[in-house]
Amino acid sequence: MADRGLDEFALIARHFAPLSRGAPGAFNLTDDVAEISVASQGLLVSCDSMIEGVHFLPDDPIEAVARKLLRRNVSDIVAKGARPTGYLLALLWPRRRSTEEIGAFASGLEEDQAIYGISLLGGDTSSTDGPLSATITIFGEPLGRGPVRRAGAGAGDCVFITGTIGDAGLGLASARGLLPGLPDADASWLVGRYRLPQPRSNAARLIAERATASIDVSDGLVADAGHLARTSGVRLEIDAARVPVSPAAGRWLALQPDQEAARMALFSAGDDYEALFTAPRAVAAQVIEAAGQLNVPLSLIGICVEGGGVGFRSNDGRILATGTGGWRHF
Amino acid sequence: MADRGLDEFALIARHFAPLSRGAPGAFNLTDDVAEISVASQGLLVSCDSMIEGVHFLPDDPIEAVARKLLRRNVSDIVAKGARPTGYLLALLWPRRRSTEEIGAFASGLEEDQAIYGISLLGGDTSSTDGPLSATITIFGEPLGRGPVRRAGAGAGDCVFITGTIGDAGLGLASARGLLPGLPDADASWLVGRYRLPQPRSNAARLIAERATASIDVSDGLVADAGHLARTSGVRLEIDAARVPVSPAAGRWLALQPDQEAARMALFSAGDDYEALFTAPRAVAAQVIEAAGQLNVPLSLIGICVEGGGVGFRSNDGRILATGTGGWRHF
Repeated sequence: MADRGLDEFALIARHFAPLSRGAPGAFNLTDDVAEISVASQGLLVSCDSMIEGVHFLPDDPIEAVARKLLRRNVSDIVAKGARPTGYLLALLWPRRRSTEEIGAFASGLEEDQAIYGISLLGGDTSSTDGPLSATITIFGEPLGRGPVRRAGAGAGDCVFITGTIGDAGLGLASARGLLPGLPDADASWLVGRYRLPQPRSNAARLIAERATASIDVSDGLVADAGHLARTSGVRLEIDAARVPVSPAAGRWLALQPDQEAARMALFSAGDDYEALFTAPRAVAAQVIEAAGQLNVPLSLIGICVEGGGVGFRSNDGRILATGTGGWRHF
Repeated sequence: MADRGLDEFALIARHFAPLSRGAPGAFNLTDDVAEISVASQGLLVSCDSMIEGVHFLPDDPIEAVARKLLRRNVSDIVAKGARPTGYLLALLWPRRRSTEEIGAFASGLEEDQAIYGISLLGGDTSSTDGPLSATITIFGEPLGRGPVRRAGAGAGDCVFITGTIGDAGLGLASARGLLPGLPDADASWLVGRYRLPQPRSNAARLIAERATASIDVSDGLVADAGHLARTSGVRLEIDAARVPVSPAAGRWLALQPDQEAARMALFSAGDDYEALFTAPRAVAAQVIEAAGQLNVPLSLIGICVEGGGVGFRSNDGRILATGTGGWRHF
């Protein structure tokens, strides 16, 4: 059924075909399929959707929404020890939004294509009376023998996390007007962390070479550590004080009446797009050294033991929270 | 951001994980990525979305909606002379719809997986306050050296179409209550053609071996012939009387005051999911014979000439309509 609401021919030729320039198999977006080039290590694929009102706010800048969608997908690939190679876009565009905004959406993608070295391979557009929604299917090439899976962690392995945890959750709360006490500079930095995640693509090779299991932290550290624990069949013991928080989140934390509860709220918040991975204790020192050389902020936050679930412990050894979490991806 | 509206873990384990059984690289839907196996001929990829209220009616049976979405994607692959191998599903499920309906949606997919020999490889689910929307990304393996493209038709090539044209358009109109005069049996058959297209998967090898250009007819014959003409840089001259219509559509046609206008309405209707392809005149007889052996209904409807656009001619040589059409896919 043709879509009569948008002049898709003009839209695609103007805004999207230029995004496919680096990929000859995209046929300049003039065919119904794309031909994917596959490296000898194989091909990974993942998809992720964002819907207005669920995964972003209606007044979030549309260019940032496009970039966040692409980065959420890049994050899935990177955490598997792989390199993103290209993507498809399925876009449901609300009739009430202007077509200029489509240009801004495409510009956001273009900017990030350059950063991650990928091209648009094809897709589908339709107009809708519902909310804006967009799905990206991303392709990746493993940098090791295959993807580093959620399964694979063994008792004794160390648990590592990139970057800082909880910033995006505070950023979202701030964008919703729920944290009026934040200093302006902190609020703006935290909202930026919510709107524009920074998947750690320079950690991909390290993960491919050293990690026994890995997952990107999108549902919150508590939930995603639970996914890794469940799929690997181990228990993760995490030292809450070692989980890194940013200076801005630290200033928010310092003002909270219940420090431990506030810290656990940060660890449950989601949208971090950091990588949580495990590696044998014997290579922990090399992992930390390699991360330093790669300029990847990395922290050792715990250890895998026999059992199931995740325990977050305080400095005095009390268990602050136990997480199992739900599954968002499938 | 985790979705708090659906218990996705239970949903996926119950309804979707069983659909991935045939694909070890799907990791039983417990990871963030799938590993795609790629044949030596390469890998094709395409994606297509359906939105409630745009591509299907809110009261269409949900099982049929799932099957139609999968078949729309299968149709894209088949028309390229390729075999579908697997797919990803991104599902935005309205909170107001029951989770039992998700079971029916998954059953529809399961039924068609068996027909087309494919498995679910992964995906993403979210709940939404907007309309139901679903995107499938499908993978295919070319049966020839690569995909048969929209580009490739040359002047002198014959134009072929599988099946009959216009049934789904009449079926949609009938489902909307716009054709009260149709006999019940015809109405029900035509609505079935609208709800459950029959992509000609047994024609894929013939297309791979013989076609110079090919496209699936989803936007209507007029528009899709226009896409093929434009991309190939030829003009399609189509003999309107040779374009096949079904007995049910023929009975509707017989009652219309302006036969030629009614015929052109059928050719513009969309949702046929037949294959339109071109082949050199020298092999036209072999193409028709091979189609007969494969049980593929096939008609020779015209010829490619120098120029651009599409002309539909009446028996006495008058041009009934000239189409260029818009582009829906990219």
